[in-house]
Amino acid sequence: MTPFAAHVYADRRRRAAALADEAGLDGVVVTPGPDLTYFLGYSSSTTSERLTLLFIPASPAGAEPDGIAQALAVVPRLEEHDLLRGAVGPVQAVAWSDGDDEHAAAAGLLRPRGRYAISDAAWALHVLGLQRALPGTGWLPVTRALPMLRAVKSPEEVERLAAAGAGADAVFDEIVQRRFAGRRERDVADDLAALLRDQGHEQVDFTLVCAGANGADPHHDAGDTVIREGDMVVLDFGGLADGYGSDTTRTVHVGEPEPDEREVHDVVRAAQAAGIAAVRPGATCQDVDRAARRVITDAGFGEHFIHRTGHGIGLTTHEPPYLVEGEATPLRAGMCFSVEPGVYLPGRFGVRIEDIVVAFDAASPQGARRLNTSPRGLRLVE
Amino acid sequence: MTPFAAHVYADRRRRAAALADEAGLDGVVVTPGPDLTYFLGYSSSTTSERLTLLFIPASPAGAEPDGIAQALAVVPRLEEHDLLRGAVGPVQAVAWSDGDDEHAAAAGLLRPRGRYAISDAAWALHVLGLQRALPGTGWLPVTRALPMLRAVKSPEEVERLAAAGAGADAVFDEIVQRRFAGRRERDVADDLAALLRDQGHEQVDFTLVCAGANGADPHHDAGDTVIREGDMVVLDFGGLADGYGSDTTRTVHVGEPEPDEREVHDVVRAAQAAGIAAVRPGATCQDVDRAARRVITDAGFGEHFIHRTGHGIGLTTHEPPYLVEGEATPLRAGMCFSVEPGVYLPGRFGVRIEDIVVAFDAASPQGARRLNTSPRGLRLVE
Repeated sequence: MTPFAAHVYADRRRRAAALADEAGLDGVVVTPGPDLTYFLGYSSSTTSERLTLLFIPASPAGAEPDGIAQALAVVPRLEEHDLLRGAVGPVQAVAWSDGDDEHAAAAGLLRPRGRYAISDAAWALHVLGLQRALPGTGWLPVTRALPMLRAVKSPEEVERLAAAGAGADAVFDEIVQRRFAGRRERDVADDLAALLRDQGHEQVDFTLVCAGANGADPHHDAGDTVIREGDMVVLDFGGLADGYGSDTTRTVHVGEPEPDEREVHDVVRAAQAAGIAAVRPGATCQDVDRAARRVITDAGFGEHFIHRTGHGIGLTTHEPPYLVEGEATPLRAGMCFSVEPGVYLPGRFGVRIEDIVVAFDAASPQGARRLNTSPRGLRLVE
Repeated sequence: MTPFAAHVYADRRRRAAALADEAGLDGVVVTPGPDLTYFLGYSSSTTSERLTLLFIPASPAGAEPDGIAQALAVVPRLEEHDLLRGAVGPVQAVAWSDGDDEHAAAAGLLRPRGRYAISDAAWALHVLGLQRALPGTGWLPVTRALPMLRAVKSPEEVERLAAAGAGADAVFDEIVQRRFAGRRERDVADDLAALLRDQGHEQVDFTLVCAGANGADPHHDAGDTVIREGDMVVLDFGGLADGYGSDTTRTVHVGEPEPDEREVHDVVRAAQAAGIAAVRPGATCQDVDRAARRVITDAGFGEHFIHRTGHGIGLTTHEPPYLVEGEATPLRAGMCFSVEPGVYLPGRFGVRIEDIVVAFDAASPQGARRLNTSPRGLRLVE
């Protein structure tokens, strides 16, 4: 992905340091994956049994401790050169060699009784190794301790998400002009993947094509089922374009739908609109879920909406904030997430409609702006 | 990958249960990735922020508790169907829904003060979540608690590793007949990747092409450097074929080498042979490292051999056993690992030679059998 300017990464570390301080933590331990990309602009290309981490010491807003302007990293000596070259901005690296105790090397940066947040996807090998090296420390997954660390996107990030979303919309516009009846789900999925790449996605994360009764399983992947006249077909696809995610779902119908198919589609469409309308000043994440769910429940399909209403998106296609009952975090300007209610009728069909939205940005300061704009009516295909 | 018979997975769980019992543990918690593939034949295709785990309760050898013949899993309800369909053999699944406390659901299988091993690559989110749900439990990464759990391969696994190795050897035979001088490292790497796929690899993990001074960085990837007449070029490539790994390295020379290039190559070749010869009854992992290292040190290049001598290979291309100073585990029949010493001369060139070997199998009961057999002499290319 195209890196941002060096100050962007230092600013992100500064913000993390201040959030950690506010939360009563001593710092944030960042391991390879999207968190490291976010705070350092560096993606380790190698496997993770060797410890690499970035340490962000907590610091009151306005202070400027070590590890902010110059990033502070622990890295296998073999990968030190890659890290120094790949990171955006200056790095002070503690390199360790094969045979060293890598967790002891990292422990040198930490306080013996400190409390730290660590990347959700850090390996158990490393979190348990750090606990062993410093038995008095306390550890929390970063999405529990600082759930919204990457959740609020900058305008530059929203721009990339919008571009990824526009690419996905162009894919939908194209796919509905192709033939469905008589082809396998897998063939349509291959088309979706190729179209996403044509639209500038460097990574395709999923291309779900769920025909007829397969649509009743929200995580059904594309398989060998042949799509037939009369099928509802759920299309859910996305990936990464210039580092940022797309994720959109539309449900189409092959030929003329039955009245009950239309009815369910209308309910889901109304639920999705209600979820998006719930993005208002003062609302929380769970309010979006409740608003979408209420429409479906009131229509008598509540037991058939079997997943949360949405998830955040950014450097990954699934990240906080989660739009789910129990998530009482207030919505904040710049949060980007999916709103994707569905109804799943076992043995019959499923319907899901999904857009990515950004909360309270300049173009929609009191609500949500959709980053997907494909038509949401029940599209008939051949 | 082609699944093995159902009894293979149950036997693996039975062996893990007995090893855990011997080690004084209460069980093994297995999360998605190679461990789950190994014990259940199931690969989760989705992201991991939702908890999926397989629980193997410790049990004395000969006993037959729950969770062995019928596997015991915790799974998101959305993925329950995929797991039941994807697992080889019967599974008893505890499904949880979005909004549930997934760690509390898993805690129901565990003892409040039990000691457990958990997959190295389990997410911090989940290991910390389990610790929080059961604060009295103790946790160890599985490679620390039961380091050799997947390290001893069955004859069927060795057969797949041998087939993957033969594929990699065929790639080397082909690549040395192609042109090097005037092409970018990246172009040769693309050839290697395509050839690995032609040889039946479903996944390419790395195709390192390191020309001239780039060869002095053991983890240099292929870049835009143009390969020139007179360059030493390190070629290190591998991936997965039918689920099992290949990983081999040869160093070639474009045109006629200088005497010192030949000398270093001879030293590394002798070191590699010494490492392999050290695979003898009674030897430990570190003995292989010491034997290879001694040859290089005696030749005056000790400070330029800057990594461990090797790593295990199986469902991944990097796993225990590690052939490194401090690893005193005895070598056992069926262990498969790389032997890959190197010498790295900064600013000049590097040499590495790597084969996968199997210890003490039927064809070589007192030593190592190589699963790579490409010629190890300094091959001259154009």
